[in-house]
Formats: sequence, structure tokens, C-alpha cells
Amino acid sequence: MLNTLIVGASGYAGAELTAYLNRHPHMNITALAVSAQSADAGKLLSELHPQLKGIVDLPLQPLVNVAEAAKGIDVVFLATAHEVSHDIAPEFLAAGCVVFDLSGAFRVQGSDFYRQYYGFEHQHADWLAKAVYGLAEWQSEKIKEAQLIAVPGCYPTAAQLALKPLIDKQLLNLDQWPVINAVSGVSGAGRKASVTTSFCEVSLQPYGLFNHRHQPEISAHLGIPVIFTPHLGSFPRGILETITCRLKTGVTAQDVAAAYHEAYDDKPLVRLYDKGVPALKSVVGLPFCDIGFAVQGEHLIAVAAEDNLLKGAAAQAVQCLNIRFGFPETQSLI
Amino acid sequence: MLNTLIVGASGYAGAELTAYLNRHPHMNITALAVSAQSADAGKLLSELHPQLKGIVDLPLQPLVNVAEAAKGIDVVFLATAHEVSHDIAPEFLAAGCVVFDLSGAFRVQGSDFYRQYYGFEHQHADWLAKAVYGLAEWQSEKIKEAQLIAVPGCYPTAAQLALKPLIDKQLLNLDQWPVINAVSGVSGAGRKASVTTSFCEVSLQPYGLFNHRHQPEISAHLGIPVIFTPHLGSFPRGILETITCRLKTGVTAQDVAAAYHEAYDDKPLVRLYDKGVPALKSVVGLPFCDIGFAVQGEHLIAVAAEDNLLKGAAAQAVQCLNIRFGFPETQSLI
Amino acid sequence: MLNTLIVGASGYAGAELTAYLNRHPHMNITALAVSAQSADAGKLLSELHPQLKGIVDLPLQPLVNVAEAAKGIDVVFLATAHEVSHDIAPEFLAAGCVVFDLSGAFRVQGSDFYRQYYGFEHQHADWLAKAVYGLAEWQSEKIKEAQLIAVPGCYPTAAQLALKPLIDKQLLNLDQWPVINAVSGVSGAGRKASVTTSFCEVSLQPYGLFNHRHQPEISAHLGIPVIFTPHLGSFPRGILETITCRLKTGVTAQDVAAAYHEAYDDKPLVRLYDKGVPALKSVVGLPFCDIGFAVQGEHLIAVAAEDNLLKGAAAQAVQCLNIRFGFPETQSLI
Amino acid sequence: MLNTLIVGASGYAGAELTAYLNRHPHMNITALAVSAQSADAGKLLSELHPQLKGIVDLPLQPLVNVAEAAKGIDVVFLATAHEVSHDIAPEFLAAGCVVFDLSGAFRVQGSDFYRQYYGFEHQHADWLAKAVYGLAEWQSEKIKEAQLIAVPGCYPTAAQLALKPLIDKQLLNLDQWPVINAVSGVSGAGRKASVTTSFCEVSLQPYGLFNHRHQPEISAHLGIPVIFTPHLGSFPRGILETITCRLKTGVTAQDVAAAYHEAYDDKPLVRLYDKGVPALKSVVGLPFCDIGFAVQGEHLIAVAAEDNLLKGAAAQAVQCLNIRFGFPETQSLI
Repeated sequence: MLNTLIVGASGYAGAELTAYLNRHPHMNITALAVSAQSADAGKLLSELHPQLKGIVDLPLQPLVNVAEAAKGIDVVFLATAHEVSHDIAPEFLAAGCVVFDLSGAFRVQGSDFYRQYYGFEHQHADWLAKAVYGLAEWQSEKIKEAQLIAVPGCYPTAAQLALKPLIDKQLLNLDQWPVINAVSGVSGAGRKASVTTSFCEVSLQPYGLFNHRHQPEISAHLGIPVIFTPHLGSFPRGILETITCRLKTGVTAQDVAAAYHEAYDDKPLVRLYDKGVPALKSVVGLPFCDIGFAVQGEHLIAVAAEDNLLKGAAAQAVQCLNIRFGFPETQSLI
Repeated sequence: MLNTLIVGASGYAGAELTAYLNRHPHMNITALAVSAQSADAGKLLSELHPQLKGIVDLPLQPLVNVAEAAKGIDVVFLATAHEVSHDIAPEFLAAGCVVFDLSGAFRVQGSDFYRQYYGFEHQHADWLAKAVYGLAEWQSEKIKEAQLIAVPGCYPTAAQLALKPLIDKQLLNLDQWPVINAVSGVSGAGRKASVTTSFCEVSLQPYGLFNHRHQPEISAHLGIPVIFTPHLGSFPRGILETITCRLKTGVTAQDVAAAYHEAYDDKPLVRLYDKGVPALKSVVGLPFCDIGFAVQGEHLIAVAAEDNLLKGAAAQAVQCLNIRFGFPETQSLI
Repeated sequence: MLNTLIVGASGYAGAELTAYLNRHPHMNITALAVSAQSADAGKLLSELHPQLKGIVDLPLQPLVNVAEAAKGIDVVFLATAHEVSHDIAPEFLAAGCVVFDLSGAFRVQGSDFYRQYYGFEHQHADWLAKAVYGLAEWQSEKIKEAQLIAVPGCYPTAAQLALKPLIDKQLLNLDQWPVINAVSGVSGAGRKASVTTSFCEVSLQPYGLFNHRHQPEISAHLGIPVIFTPHLGSFPRGILETITCRLKTGVTAQDVAAAYHEAYDDKPLVRLYDKGVPALKSVVGLPFCDIGFAVQGEHLIAVAAEDNLLKGAAAQAVQCLNIRFGFPETQSLI
Repeated sequence: MLNTLIVGASGYAGAELTAYLNRHPHMNITALAVSAQSADAGKLLSELHPQLKGIVDLPLQPLVNVAEAAKGIDVVFLATAHEVSHDIAPEFLAAGCVVFDLSGAFRVQGSDFYRQYYGFEHQHADWLAKAVYGLAEWQSEKIKEAQLIAVPGCYPTAAQLALKPLIDKQLLNLDQWPVINAVSGVSGAGRKASVTTSFCEVSLQPYGLFNHRHQPEISAHLGIPVIFTPHLGSFPRGILETITCRLKTGVTAQDVAAAYHEAYDDKPLVRLYDKGVPALKSVVGLPFCDIGFAVQGEHLIAVAAEDNLLKGAAAQAVQCLNIRFGFPETQSLI
């Protein structure tokens, strides 16, 4: 049994993570924590997330002293704001914990990136360099050795899973940048109150045109430029990405299918569609990323769907945990 | 042409009111105002409510000095918080304006009511005594003479329209209190950010059991006790009320129908169903209150539906305006 | 391992049931069946319910010959239309199978009931007499001995769980019939195409006033008259019931709480709220029925919420299975 | 006053059209019609669309004999299936009526198009050749002279309004095909029952990849190839299109803005965003097409939003009517 601490359990991804770990046979949830200033400190997790009543009734403890909190803890999950993860991850790491960080604080190499897209100066170049990007289907060897796993963002997970096999097999004509149109459920914006995410204001809308921080995360890890256009959708959870690419002359639908099958046939959390493309409902509440595609001439449309809180956050974190510690990859996920 | 000022135009009811008055042939919108502290002061109404872009692009002016703002104004609409209406209505009234107040500040006689349900001491007993309750179908004679019209709350409008004909005709056995189960869209909670009304948190739920302030408003104006159970529904607008009553022995469905028809056959904004009961969609975006019912033995279920922002707020305010100034009752509403 | 056949697996409750049984350690799904005429015969379950892709990819086999289909089967689940269950359950029973019927065909004693509310003549008075009503929290002793378990309807489950403790403790003044206002998600209407349940038509609406067949099911099993008013809600799943009752003089909130705690403190699938009342989201996707209440004077409002497809159908069926065969009551449900 | 007949008034677009024409000061609705076989024949329009109760309570008459129906009619609106419009429009035209056809039957020149995308042989090459494509902002001179106006499809209206100014000003590098990602509300699929559009089945999903019939309609009228990917969205009405294009080297955001302003500054039903892009809610229930855009380097993202039933159907039909007969362009629309 591994003792685990979940910081930021009060949020949507944190609650999902807690539910997964609560039923994981090798994990012992030692404590749930929130930031010391949080108005939620002292409440039960199930007061905020009543679906967990009777399942996980642990209190949310204020995280006052990281060194203290790290005592006896084997594994830490950080479902915290980027700046918070940036500040506290190194302390947990120094205490010997294995850290799974669901924030963006350690996902991309280079301090410029953090200055430009996250608005802060990254202070932990050493840990940033050591962090392993937890795109589970592609990084399992590195994850097994890592002490700090930076779990990918919700949008980048689906985008990379759809594009990486095509890039690796050199099927794309990159003169034309892939166009990633993505629609996310509102839970992607987190649990705090805001007019933007209030019930009566939400309506399908693009945002962050040409400047969403997930665009450089996708580009950095794929090694190609992309056009990434996120949209807020009028549903609570799930992400659907419609990705339009130019194929190299002569590349066929069969080539595309072969690339996907080679990449994912032995990966339990990616489901390939031999015909048709996924709908959002296929993945909501489930840990999968579903991928389908269509080809016409030199044009390819790939469609990837996932639950933003699961394969886009909590489930992928647990998948990385399972890989890191040698548990079955889908343990407690399916 | 009457010059009009709309205070609180930034909210959902305020925006609907502005749209109605903007197309009213006898009204000239002199200004839109918000409280001086509002973060929305200085913005265009259409920035907050983009559906009004190109239709009403007036700015939201901070209301700094009521006496100043009242100059040259014939009619004021207050779509403001109860406390704000309570404070500023008397100043507009003193300046000679006719005031239509959409808040609860002048709806119920008796300072106890405000102490208990609104948490403030009412300072304007004189105006409270003079205020006419703007339940338009039942108060038109008084409205014609009034300087201060207290437009009824959203829940009370539907409840009273459904119950008042039955009470007046003495059809109910009041040993058994009418049970009013009401479900309201989220816009009823207003436009400010709150976790409770955030997209991912909203879900059908009763609230305010036995202590919602609309229960005594309903009871006071109907003159009978009722059990009123409001629910938050997962839709932006509309109210549906399912009202279960005991009929006096011998009262028939025909008696009930006759009471409704007598009350409303000449009322253009109440639509009676000869068979079946209304669905929410029948009234969303429209100024009507729809009423249907079913009887079995001594039991009656009446169903009333309205748009909480329209017949439950803005449309009824305009209906009162039309009555007050002798315009056709549905002017600019249909 | 028990061999099991699921008939009607193509529907919403059938698919949930299949997912539960698929992960049940003591159950072996031998086959999934649909009626021989069904257009879905021959398809994979996961074509109709893509969320099950990679989890349950079994085909839907046409049920041509019941005797043949029953061979080697220990347990049969019928998630079929009432008439179909009525016709085929006796054949499976004759073959020695234990049958869990999710339809209404064996829920209420008396052929009059079926003539009046279901529109058919019940042909199997013997099996009807032997059928055990599977309201799991209240019938566990009988369930252990039963060969035919009639799993209760979705509305009746929540209504009875909320009312039965109060009736048993004689807390209610039954001169006033309990008023049950219930709102159900659209999945309650099943999966077949209809204008009524099409996306653009659904809107909060009462239906079946005074004549829904679940009213007599509730009354028959509680032994009291009730007023039951179902509503269609604009959400896919879940039921919320707001139940208004008259208490006997002198009965207190403490008495009500005590009755609930005595009934359910050792029942893992009923969650009691010590303060507040449940929201729909607390139970969607979960096997629980959540119950809360408020009292004022002699008036009680009890609120019960459940997922109509789970505690209102599939989860309760599995709960009955677990009780029947001595497995832990929540096996594969939590 | 022009006498008008509306065929297909029972559908979603037909009902909206009827509401517009009902309040049009120059139009007299002589009759509403549905096909002779329709199960809705004989019902009141307001039985199907209860929001119209008390507003338009006309009956839906079966269309038995076109020549008979055309007598005394000046203007006919066809909100009918493509094949029906194809069959009956010529008869109304022969009788001298001006016909506004909301179907696809006369939108694109060339019989091949109908064979390939609509599955029928077009029998009326003469009328097809004379038909004017009613993209109102661009065809007003031709509309004024036309007897048959083919009102554009919902997706093509928004796509063309967003792209046409850019193409006309030669701002686009067409080596890269514009990528049109469009999400439509479910009402776009019409009012008939289908599992696909049932409440529990709808979920964000692409469909018709590379083969939706609106792609060639868009391409034919713009004169360029495009990639058009429609999606079904989980909302009743509205269309949002996110269009990604390559600009020619040197083209700036100012050039794009200038092209839009030149095209639409005097067009009352296109609203341009000087900053930001539209959300769906900005246009639902309104006759506008809203357009905004962002540029980065040589990449342009244009976003267009409209109500699929209004600017994408009924409102554009009325706009064409107003242009055709010299009424103010927005008469009865705003």
C-alpha cells in the first residue's frame, strides 16, 4: 500500500482523482488537502461533491506546511493551480515523494514558455528538466523512472493522441498546419464562481484564439506548428476535437488506419473507430480517448474525444501512477 | 412620448425590460443606469447582453445622484436589489416620477415582513402603504391611479394567477393547504457569479423549504396559507408551478373551468388550456402565463407556466405601464 | 459463477444492467438478447451504446425460442416491455431460471390492475402470486427465497423509500393524501424514437395527471392513497421527488429523522441527509437513493433522488441479485 | 396586402416563418398547409407549437390540389422537403405566384448536383435556371426581379457571409482550402421523430464528413473549394461556424476588417464584431448573422453565428420577401 496525499481535492479533477484512488487496491489516501486560504478547508469533500457522500467522506485539510504534510507520504497528486504546483512540488519532491502534477507547471521545457503563457518566472529549472510529460501511451518507459510526472493538459492529450501516430509515420504535409477545433465542457474552467461559467451565460463560443496556452504545449511536444481553436461548449464535461490535416500526396486512408492501429492496438485507454467518428457521449464518465477519422483525397479529418476530467486529467494521472508502480495500466479506471 | 430611466438594466430582467421599452412607441429611453459601484458602469448594455448589439447599444451610466437622474424623467423602472429599490424609489417618487419597482421592496404590507424575510427595517411605511401590487390581471383599476407599482415576484405571479380565481369563487377546501411545487430557471437567481449557479453545479434541487420569501408574498395577497416549495431547474429561464389543492365537496372540473374563464377570458396575457397542461417551452421568451388543470374527485392539480423574466418580471412591468398610461395592454409585448 | 442472460439489453436500463453484470465477479454473461423482431438484432451492444465499446462488445441476439435460450442459464434479467415480460417470464421460470423482471408485469397483485393500467389481461395469476416485489431495503427476506423478483418501477422506488418509514411508524395524518411531485429524466421513456422525447420538444412538463400507472403501484405497496404527479424534465437521467405530507399532531422533525435512521442506517444504498435535501446531481450515475426532509409545524416535505436507470432499475435489480444469492449487497454497484 | 400561403408550416422553420408573417403589416396569411398525407393535417399550428397559442391558431390544411390552393395567392413560402418543393414549386409559379423556397430544390445549378447530393433527377431545369439564390446581402438586385427565390441553407448562409467579402477582395491564399467547422442545433434536423435526435442520444458529434450536401452548395456559390465539417450540438437551435483560412502574404487584420465593413456596414442583419467573436447565445431567437475574426501571421479565424431557423431559414426568407416587394429590409424581423 502506498500512502497518498491529494492536494486540490476540492476541484472537479481532484474529486474524480480521489474517487479513483479511493477504490485503488494499492493506494491508501492519507489525507485530502486544499490551500490554507481556501474557504473549503475543514469541509468534507462530500459536502462539495455530494455524489461522493458515503463513498469518500474525508475532510479537506488546509495545507499549511508542506514538509509536515509530506511525512510518511509516498505519492502526491497535485490538482492545484499552476503557480501552486510550481511552488510546492519541489518541496514534496525534496521529501522523496513521487509527484503527479495535474497543473501546467512542469509540462513544457523552457522558462520563456512560462513567462509568456503562464505569466510567471519559473524558479525550478532543475525539476522542470527532470519532469516527465505523462502522455501515458507514449511515455511509459520514462514514466517508470520518473519522480515528477507532469500530467498533460486536457486539450493536448486528445490532440497529441490523434496527431502523434501520423507525425511519427510522416503522413502529414506540414506546409499546411493542422487545424484543431476543440470544444470543451465547462468543468474545464474549474469550480470557482465566475460570470463566464455561470449557467445562463454559457453558450457555444470560441475563446483564446491564437493565444491559448495549450497551443504551445501541443506544438512543443509534437514538434510541429498547429492552429488550435478552443471553444466553450454548453455541457459540463467532455472534449471533442475535430482536426483537419493535409496528407502527403499518395497517403491513403489505409495508411492512416495502419498508423493508428500500430500506435494503439495494445493501449487499453485509446479506442479506435474502424468506421465513423466518436461522439462526446461515448467518453463522458470514462477514462478513454476515442479516435476516428475520414479521408478524402489529400484531406484528413481526425476526431478525438475524451472526458476532460478523466483521460484529460484524473484518469491519465492514475494511468501514469499505474505505469510508474507497475500496477495494471487500467487498475481502478475501468 | 414618456421619458424613461431604467435602473438595473444590466441584469437579466433589466435587459428584457430595456428591449421591450426600446420598441415601445410611446417610450423614450432617456438613460440606462446601474449602481455607482457596479463594475458594469460605463459598459454598453450590449457588451453584457450581446443579443442586443445593434438594437440597444446604450451605455450603463452610474447612478450617482437620484435627484439629478430624475430630472425630466416621467417613468422609472427599478430592476434593482430589494435594498436599493427601497432606498431610491422614494427619491424618484418625490421627484414626481411614476415608479415601477421589480424588486420586493414594496410588495407586501407590514414592516415585520421585511424584517423577517428581507433582513432590513423598512423605512418608508408611507410609500409602502401607497404602493399598488402590480398583479396586472387583478389590479388594473388601482394601477391606473398609482404612482408606485410593486411588480410581483416571479413565483407569486404564476401562483396567484392560478389560485386566485379558485379562491374568489370559494372552490377550495382550505383545511388542506395548497401545495405549490415550483421549478424556476437559473436566471431567477440573477446575473452575478456564484458557485450555486455555475454551469457545472446546477441540477434540479429544492431550496428554501418552508422559508422562501415568496411564500408569505403569495399568502398575503391570496389571504390563505400555502406550502410553497421552489426548485432550481437546469434550464436558463421559465417557471413551471404544479399546484395541488383540495376542492370543496361537490365542486367539479366544470366549476373550475368556469372560474378560470370568467377571470381570464378577456385577459390577453393569460392563456387557458381547455385540455392538457402547459409545458415550460410554451412560454419561454413570451409574455404569457399559461394555465391548465386536471380534477379527480376532490383533488385538483393546476399547472401554471410563465417566463420568470417576462410575465414574472419585465413583461408584467410593461403590462402595468400600459395599463397605467392607457396604452393597449399588450403594447410591445406580443 | 452463475450463467446469465439479459433480455432487452439494447435499452437504457438494459445497457446499464449489462455493464454492472459484466464486472460482477460471480456472473457470467452468456448472452444478450433482444426480441426477434428488433431492428437491433445482430448489432453489437456497443454500437447502440458506444460508451461500452471495448468493455462489452457482445452481440444482441434475437430471442427466437425461450426454451432454447434458457438452457444452461441460471439467472435471467428481463429489461423488456411489460407485455413481453408477461409472456416470456413464465417460460424461463418453468425452465428453472431465477428471473429478475424490470418491467411492470409482476409488480402488483390483481388482474384488475393490469386490465386498467396496462391494458392487457394477465394470464399468469400463479406467477403473479409468487412474485416478490424487489424493493430491496424492505423485502430482503422474501427476495432470498424468490424465483421471480419484480423489480419496482423508477418512480415507485423513490416514493416508497421516502414514505414507508413514516407510514410504518404511523407518523402521517392520512386524512391528507401525500402529494408526490416527481420529475424524471427523459431516459425513463425508453430508447425508441418519438416526437415527445425528441431533443427540441422536451421541456419541463407534467404528464399522466391522476392516471399514471405508477400511482397505483405506489399506493398498493404502501397501503395508502397518494397523489402522484410525474413530470418530464429536460435532463437525460435521474428522478427527483418532492413529497409533501401532513404529520400527525405532535410529530416532530426528530421523530421523522429517527424513523429514517432506523429504517436505513444499515442499508448501504440509501443515503440520509442530516441537513438539507438532495439535488439530482448527487445520484446521477450512482446506485443510491438519497433522502432528506424538512418539517414546519405539521407539514413535512421529504425529498428523494435516485438515478431512474440505476436505483430505479438496473442497480436495484443487481442489488436484488446480490441479496438473492448471498453476495455482498453492493457487489459491483459501488 | 399580399395574400400568402405557407406550405410546411408544421415544421420548426415553418412555424417561425408563420410567426414572422403573422405580424407583417403587408402580408395576409390566407392559409397554412401541410402535405396531404401528413398526420398533422387538420390540427391547429398551435397544437404543434404551443408557444403560438393565441397568436396563430390557424389550422394546418392538407395540400391536395396545388392549382386550387394557388388561387388568389400572391406569395407562397415552401418550408417543405426538397422533393416536395421540387414537385410543387413549378405549379405555384405557373399560377403566377412568387415563390420563396426554403428547401434545397432550386439552390444550385446543374442536374448532376441533385443526382449526386439529393438523390433525385431534377425535372425543372427551366425554373432552376431562373431561380435566384436568396443570399440576401449579396443578391438584392436579382431578388427584386425574381419569381422564384431559393433561400440558402442554414450552414451555407453563415459560411458564405463570412467568406464572401474575403474572396471578393482576394485576401485568401486558396492553395489551402478554408476549413469550416460548424456546429448546429438539433432543430436543423427537423421535427420528425428519430433515435438520432432523441433527447438522450444527442451529444456533440461530427457527421457527414466530406459528404454533406451543404459543402457543394457553399463551394458552388463561393467559387472555391472548402472543407466543411458539420457537427450536431447539444442545443436546440443556432449555428456557430469557426472558419480557418490562409491569408495571402501581406494581408493584415485591417484588410480583413475593411473587407467586412465594406460588405456589411449598410446591411442591417449582419453584425460585425470589432473585437472578439460571437457566441451562439448572441443570435438565438434573432434574425442576425454575427461575424468576428482574429488574425495571426497568415492565419485567419473567422467566426460566424446565426440562428439556423431564422437567418438560416425563416428570417432570411422574410428578408428576401421584403427586398422583393420593396418593404423595409428588416420589416417584422427586429
